[in-house]
Amino acid sequence: MNDTFLKACRGEKVDYTPVWLMRQAGRYLPEYQAVRGQVDFLTLCKTPELAAKVTLQPVDILGVDAAILFSDILIPIEAMGMHLEFSEKKGPVLSEPVRTKSNVEKLIVPDTEDSMSFVLDTIKILRRELKVPLIGFSGAPFTLATYMIEGGSSKNFLNTKKMMFQNSGLFNYLMKKLTKTVISYLSSQIEAGAQAVQIFDSWAGALSPVDYKEFELPYVKKIVSALKKQHPDTPVIYFANDCAGIIKEAKKSGADVIGVDWRIDMADAVKKLGKKVVVQGNLDPCVLFAPKEHIEERVKDILFKGESAKGHIFNLGHGILPETPVENAIAMVEAVHKYGKKE
Amino acid sequence: MNDTFLKACRGEKVDYTPVWLMRQAGRYLPEYQAVRGQVDFLTLCKTPELAAKVTLQPVDILGVDAAILFSDILIPIEAMGMHLEFSEKKGPVLSEPVRTKSNVEKLIVPDTEDSMSFVLDTIKILRRELKVPLIGFSGAPFTLATYMIEGGSSKNFLNTKKMMFQNSGLFNYLMKKLTKTVISYLSSQIEAGAQAVQIFDSWAGALSPVDYKEFELPYVKKIVSALKKQHPDTPVIYFANDCAGIIKEAKKSGADVIGVDWRIDMADAVKKLGKKVVVQGNLDPCVLFAPKEHIEERVKDILFKGESAKGHIFNLGHGILPETPVENAIAMVEAVHKYGKKE
Repeated sequence: MNDTFLKACRGEKVDYTPVWLMRQAGRYLPEYQAVRGQVDFLTLCKTPELAAKVTLQPVDILGVDAAILFSDILIPIEAMGMHLEFSEKKGPVLSEPVRTKSNVEKLIVPDTEDSMSFVLDTIKILRRELKVPLIGFSGAPFTLATYMIEGGSSKNFLNTKKMMFQNSGLFNYLMKKLTKTVISYLSSQIEAGAQAVQIFDSWAGALSPVDYKEFELPYVKKIVSALKKQHPDTPVIYFANDCAGIIKEAKKSGADVIGVDWRIDMADAVKKLGKKVVVQGNLDPCVLFAPKEHIEERVKDILFKGESAKGHIFNLGHGILPETPVENAIAMVEAVHKYGKKE
Repeated sequence: MNDTFLKACRGEKVDYTPVWLMRQAGRYLPEYQAVRGQVDFLTLCKTPELAAKVTLQPVDILGVDAAILFSDILIPIEAMGMHLEFSEKKGPVLSEPVRTKSNVEKLIVPDTEDSMSFVLDTIKILRRELKVPLIGFSGAPFTLATYMIEGGSSKNFLNTKKMMFQNSGLFNYLMKKLTKTVISYLSSQIEAGAQAVQIFDSWAGALSPVDYKEFELPYVKKIVSALKKQHPDTPVIYFANDCAGIIKEAKKSGADVIGVDWRIDMADAVKKLGKKVVVQGNLDPCVLFAPKEHIEERVKDILFKGESAKGHIFNLGHGILPETPVENAIAMVEAVHKYGKKE
């Protein structure tokens, strides 16, 4: 069992910097495409044998130090009572956006065992198969709220912010339901066998720091502290995307590891995070389209800057892009392992 | 003549904090819609009487302290030899994206007098009509390059970054042509009567700080220093969008004023910019959908934080949204004038 990733999460001494990639089980892999060619995306998420299969693929192909459950951040939204579809063109579509009090009232706080047992079954299969730690995950409340209120992806998050500014009571009511859902969902994943969890806050960076502090941070804090109470030994990673303006606040979430995107220099991130949290990140996914020597240079630069943190888990600053050449992802992982060796 | 804006640009003492809004001549105004209903967007940009008319509208309606030339950042790209169209759905479409050496070779460095005289004519009309200073503008080289290489808007800027990483010689060749174009274009605008210029770097924030330093900052520096040499008294504003991770670098551009988006706290921005540059910004455009008391609170907060800068020009952190209620934009301007009064 390779436990380098878990050690790094805890800030313990490691032999080398561990690495995994956000969306490492994904479309850039022909092996994934082969499985995905047979079923639609949601069916893949909901069929434990297939979800486990694609989760395992990058572990062998790339040689990463952790696996992340194959699923989608919107799965719990469906379980809360919304109708979810994935369109090839538009991405996720939630047919009746949440805009009114009665919309929020109708949403339930789902029991994972009841309505998302496929996630727990996938985790159980994976724990039997894996030789690296398994990361469970959920979307963060604000990020989930944007999809629910906008009805899908968004450019300006105008409807979300309208609700925040015009009816903060209703917004907070929704956020409370989401917070309960995320706590219960992640807790169940840990109980089923997830050895670490990551909270994906893909849209946190769309908030001004003042709004982030008021409308998202308190909920993330609540999730982290509830998880820490129930599962004190399970590391919690909080990935706040486009975090440069809010990283000092994101640190207050209480997460063991803060994941950072590529728009902040790793040296700057480490300085702001201080010595109490581990950092994860942060290569621009587009660097994987560069020649290998260039990839190596960038890996070395980030490793060097990550050295002064409490701990460093190498990752991309965002999900790997579907067009990425597999050999370049492999080259990145090899470079991390080569240049991330500790004396 | 109200010269508060120009004084603030120079860091001189002012009676109150001046204010203007990015995209203040735009779709949220029924008066603009009335003009735009008669002609398509590009024709509006290219008809001096109409472009001047819509430039003037917000000055009267909102009571702002500066006007900005009505035009589009892609105008010089068309003059460089590309075919430009605006589609209602997709936004700008440049039919033959720049990808190869011969694509770049074919591009010309346009003479503003020859191919964009409508811009200069608009400026001349405006200077006769305006009682507030007129801001000219251009896109920044990287931002213009993304449109040219992607063929329009983009999510990940993958083609742009591919060229940067795979063929930096070609990328720099394109950037040099763009830099020359921007210098000549802004210089002509100043000579025609623009009293300040703003360089819009809408996509600077998509670059990692390391790439920003290598692939964009040197060109912006070159533009600013060329303009300062030719027109030492004309203030240069550099708006770097999503700047939280690159603001210390952006400061090195040499611009008199750094415009910042809403994803960085104004106090943080001022701290990073120090005492040598003036700051512009940075209210989240979505705050204009809040009740007026809330708008006032946010205005006060930003004014208070902007106090410690060399100077502060109030603005939104990005362009005003088409759905914005006009009365809320007016309320914002009034709040800036009321609470931004100096003792």
